[in-house]
Amino acid sequence: MTTASQLTPRRQATRARLLTAAAEVFAERGFHGASVEDICEPAGFTRGAFYSNFASKDELVIELYAEHAASLRQAIAEVAAQPGLTLPDLLERVVDIWTRDPDERRRWYLLTTEFALHAVRDDDARRAWQRLQSQIRKELGALIESIAARHDLELAVPTSDLVRLLTIVLQGGLGQHLLEPRAVRAGALEREFLPLLVEATTR
Amino acid sequence: MTTASQLTPRRQATRARLLTAAAEVFAERGFHGASVEDICEPAGFTRGAFYSNFASKDELVIELYAEHAASLRQAIAEVAAQPGLTLPDLLERVVDIWTRDPDERRRWYLLTTEFALHAVRDDDARRAWQRLQSQIRKELGALIESIAARHDLELAVPTSDLVRLLTIVLQGGLGQHLLEPRAVRAGALEREFLPLLVEATTR
Repeated sequence: MTTASQLTPRRQATRARLLTAAAEVFAERGFHGASVEDICEPAGFTRGAFYSNFASKDELVIELYAEHAASLRQAIAEVAAQPGLTLPDLLERVVDIWTRDPDERRRWYLLTTEFALHAVRDDDARRAWQRLQSQIRKELGALIESIAARHDLELAVPTSDLVRLLTIVLQGGLGQHLLEPRAVRAGALEREFLPLLVEATTR
Repeated sequence: MTTASQLTPRRQATRARLLTAAAEVFAERGFHGASVEDICEPAGFTRGAFYSNFASKDELVIELYAEHAASLRQAIAEVAAQPGLTLPDLLERVVDIWTRDPDERRRWYLLTTEFALHAVRDDDARRAWQRLQSQIRKELGALIESIAARHDLELAVPTSDLVRLLTIVLQGGLGQHLLEPRAVRAGALEREFLPLLVEATTR
């Protein structure tokens, strides 16, 4: 995967505009409903411009995902670095970050779930997904280990399994909220269960 | 929702054959890729026969889901009723049931995830999903409460929230396995985390 830092500023700007345009079109039409043409046309790009920046629609989604995950991780890392914050307070703040933009979170849920379904069925998409997830797990794992150390906790399960569990519970809690918005308020299950999970997986 | 027991045997048989045919077509083409015609034609049904049994493709999926959930719950209830089984053994057996038919579980994951995405976007589908999930939560909740009582445990969280958490972790663990079959063996995350979750949510 090409990383943004290897590109010229002009090229970076084009990629960024394509990513923004794509996010909007996916929000409206879904991953499968949005063609490369649908993404290019409103933003005034040609197919050529698209394909000189991304090998495929899949690669673009993977990059959107990577950016989104990095921005969530960055927000959590900043909160975690605040002095004097207790672990329960930190977990509350993580859920605040997770729920602070409901529209974005909903779009995000739909796009990642659609892409995951696609990746279960498609070998290339699955390999790209695996590479990205492995990188995200490494970065999130390092963050979780530093938080644990700061709060004098030892992980009782492998770090990467804990990252998987936390991802499952955040994503699953969001799914329950989107399917039953009145019965499950945004972040309610996450707020209820994150502290229990942390207690169960640390010592 | 019409329940099977209110129907004549002939009608029940027709519904059952339509459900079987639909499950096969969904497995091949996905929920969105399979039209009512696609479901009827190979099984030799007319559209009229379909619509005299189901109001829509959505209603048929809901009934497939209800049947599948009931059969899983029944299998768990039977194991749970075995005398002398410890709680850790019971949890192992639950994961055995959950992983015993990988192809069926995969089809099931794809269909329910596709339908959930549809239900996030579509009001009618979401209402139908909510009615079904509420019934399933009641039944699973009663089973969990009886298992807890049998093992002298008290639930430390609302039963319906616990059902949501367990559903999230089973479905999420399956998703991780399907996306990374080599890194995550079938049932591995569920086997690792179910006992910890039970310990964290009971006293």
